[in-house]
Amino acid sequence: MGERVVVVGGDAAGGSAASQAKKRRRDLDVVMFERGRATSYSACGIPYWISDAVDSEADLIARTPEQHRAMGIDVRMRTEVVGIDLDRRVVHWRDLEAGGSGVEPFDQLVYATGSVPMRPPVPGIDAAGVYGVQVLDDGVALRAELERDEVHRVVVVGGGYIGLEIAEACRIRGLEVTVVDRSATPVGTFDPDVGEFIAEAVRKEGIDLVLSDGVAAIEVDAHHRARAVVTASGRELPADLVVLGLGVRPAVRLAEEAGIPLGTSGGVDVDVRMRTCVDGVWAAGDCVESRHRLSGQRVVVALGTHANKQGRVAGINIGGGYATFPGVIGTAVTRICETEAARTGLSEREATAAGYEFVTALVDSTTKAGYFPGARPIRVKMTAERRSGRLLGAQIVGKEAAAKRIDALAICIWNEMAVGDILSLDLSYAPPFSPVWDPVLIAARKAFDAVEADVRML
Amino acid sequence: MGERVVVVGGDAAGGSAASQAKKRRRDLDVVMFERGRATSYSACGIPYWISDAVDSEADLIARTPEQHRAMGIDVRMRTEVVGIDLDRRVVHWRDLEAGGSGVEPFDQLVYATGSVPMRPPVPGIDAAGVYGVQVLDDGVALRAELERDEVHRVVVVGGGYIGLEIAEACRIRGLEVTVVDRSATPVGTFDPDVGEFIAEAVRKEGIDLVLSDGVAAIEVDAHHRARAVVTASGRELPADLVVLGLGVRPAVRLAEEAGIPLGTSGGVDVDVRMRTCVDGVWAAGDCVESRHRLSGQRVVVALGTHANKQGRVAGINIGGGYATFPGVIGTAVTRICETEAARTGLSEREATAAGYEFVTALVDSTTKAGYFPGARPIRVKMTAERRSGRLLGAQIVGKEAAAKRIDALAICIWNEMAVGDILSLDLSYAPPFSPVWDPVLIAARKAFDAVEADVRML
Repeated sequence: MGERVVVVGGDAAGGSAASQAKKRRRDLDVVMFERGRATSYSACGIPYWISDAVDSEADLIARTPEQHRAMGIDVRMRTEVVGIDLDRRVVHWRDLEAGGSGVEPFDQLVYATGSVPMRPPVPGIDAAGVYGVQVLDDGVALRAELERDEVHRVVVVGGGYIGLEIAEACRIRGLEVTVVDRSATPVGTFDPDVGEFIAEAVRKEGIDLVLSDGVAAIEVDAHHRARAVVTASGRELPADLVVLGLGVRPAVRLAEEAGIPLGTSGGVDVDVRMRTCVDGVWAAGDCVESRHRLSGQRVVVALGTHANKQGRVAGINIGGGYATFPGVIGTAVTRICETEAARTGLSEREATAAGYEFVTALVDSTTKAGYFPGARPIRVKMTAERRSGRLLGAQIVGKEAAAKRIDALAICIWNEMAVGDILSLDLSYAPPFSPVWDPVLIAARKAFDAVEADVRML
Repeated sequence: MGERVVVVGGDAAGGSAASQAKKRRRDLDVVMFERGRATSYSACGIPYWISDAVDSEADLIARTPEQHRAMGIDVRMRTEVVGIDLDRRVVHWRDLEAGGSGVEPFDQLVYATGSVPMRPPVPGIDAAGVYGVQVLDDGVALRAELERDEVHRVVVVGGGYIGLEIAEACRIRGLEVTVVDRSATPVGTFDPDVGEFIAEAVRKEGIDLVLSDGVAAIEVDAHHRARAVVTASGRELPADLVVLGLGVRPAVRLAEEAGIPLGTSGGVDVDVRMRTCVDGVWAAGDCVESRHRLSGQRVVVALGTHANKQGRVAGINIGGGYATFPGVIGTAVTRICETEAARTGLSEREATAAGYEFVTALVDSTTKAGYFPGARPIRVKMTAERRSGRLLGAQIVGKEAAAKRIDALAICIWNEMAVGDILSLDLSYAPPFSPVWDPVLIAARKAFDAVEADVRML
């Protein structure tokens, strides 16, 4: 028997790690355990499948178990790893369908268990009719519920990315939708002056927003099925279905039980090569913590793009190569109805928490030259460090063709550029693509003026 | 009389310089001469006005003479500066409408004369019915011609940005259009493997492309009006109208006559603050040369976005502030029919000319997650320096939502990033915006593999 690599979890991170390792070292025995019914799928695509924008579940699957097997990976579907024994170097597994169980030895282990949806500890949270949207099987279950004739009113708890995306999907299906969120504006990772733009767009689509309010309880009927959400302020929101969109936390129970150390943020602690503190044990994806390049803190960011990169890095290293994951800067994008919203770097709250002092600039402009047909509104916000003018964060909200500009600003942050340098960048210009001063350059100019005004007051 | 600033040319660069200087130093007397009928307009928007995508000429004007005057700038419209006397510190002007002339003294001068269209020295080039598209008045004249019932067939000489944009505009107006270009693929500043994508798109719109062929003569009728374009290979292309889209050269005649030194590339030589070699004489816009940050060469790039930035820099410095223009990296974007094309950095030919050796990578992907409705093709090409892996150039071609990604890569080049670092960037991801690996990241991965393969062969 050759050297054996056991991969726990067959989604983005696990699948990437398995395939990279096997591609580079054909002699490795790679065994990948997945408790669900699918491998390497796009969880981010679930809302669009629910709204029927995406035709079928199969479209969301980047690589099927059969495709992994064709690469020589031993894929064990519907098989849950229930324990990791680091001393004996084995994992304990259970077949969720046939019911059997067993052990599998490993020389190297990839811990890629992903995340679990947050469930607030309130009465009724475990009632029937309360759904998370985390794995593909959740999507299957939620879709089945939504197709029932009895379902008319949906309450989404949590107005973050996934919450709003699911709310939109339900609205497209013709349901009455209410979103409850604790923040004063939806997607609390955005600053309020950007979030209010999102709130307005969401309301225009006929989605009810209940803000600055949390969930206190879920009322159930005689069959212990959810029938209403009660908020902290005492409002009762009738619901035929409750969807939890409160974000996720890293799935670290198995790691904790096995003695694989976690970091300060609660994710598995890994180095830049995705090695845990335990020899021969790697981790990648939603379950690990990453270095935030601006705050210097360790953070858990559950995003398919990071999971793919981290899985690739782990796989290359296991396969005898050298690769590193250099950390994150908090870039994210979403489209809610016709509104696009994106962010990178630190929000005002995050920047303050990290100890930075800063100035801000907010600019309203258009996505194309103002006179050009199809020019749409775009709002760009920038946060720049006092004195140095270093760009700390940027947020963009607007209509079609607005949000992807965030990548440009993410790269500015990555390279620690100051707003005074950003305003001189040689960015692309033609009337169908931007005003002669691109909105991000206008924002940089305005932020630069704010930095200078602040310096003059010192 | 206070300190007097004379601005020669009232479009993007001159207008920006005048307004920035006046804004910062109210005591300055700013006199701006413009020989045309408009100030501060978008020459880049002319093709879209010709196609009726933009409603009126007035839409293209960012700031009218009256708006400049309201800021306290003394604007002299339809008044051409015909001579600059550096010893006496005066300009000689001629009123193109009333016919008068005079002199205007200056303490400081801003030379912002723009550019003139290239006219190949072939027989018939000065015939009636041969148009350049450079200033707004050219657009007015061309539109009037296109509205004549006798005009059915248009030949565009030059298949660069402006040539193709005008060709598309004429096609939209229902005319038969042929484009002649010397290169093997249109927009010769793109590499052929990207240019062929553009060629295909242009042909699909029913525009005839005559490539690898130049113009040898323009045949005229008895009234000395163009009736056909004869190519170098001997083809005769009947034309009711000929449009020159061969690019432009800096308008430096006045500067040369006055003794304001030009640089090696033929544009006015300026330093980073937009100062010429002559004390108190500044220059900005299409008429100056800029430092290319990758090749180290001086280049003339006629683009509204540079003209605006350079004019702003000159104006700030004249107004007592401090600002610099740090150079260009050759970023450009265009939309031809439904196809978007963008570039930044050096093309293969330019990189070779600059002395670089490099590897390349070409990736075909989609603008959104492959399964997402509206996902469109995108091709990303990267050129990376051997050994170092430094990104030297990138080109993107594709459909809707493809090209603006070039800004991200422009910033990578600006920061001298290597492709091995680019592939780890924290770029935005959500299914409506990109595959989980954004096409630019896939291209960076592939370019990185090419760099490593090249190193292994050393």
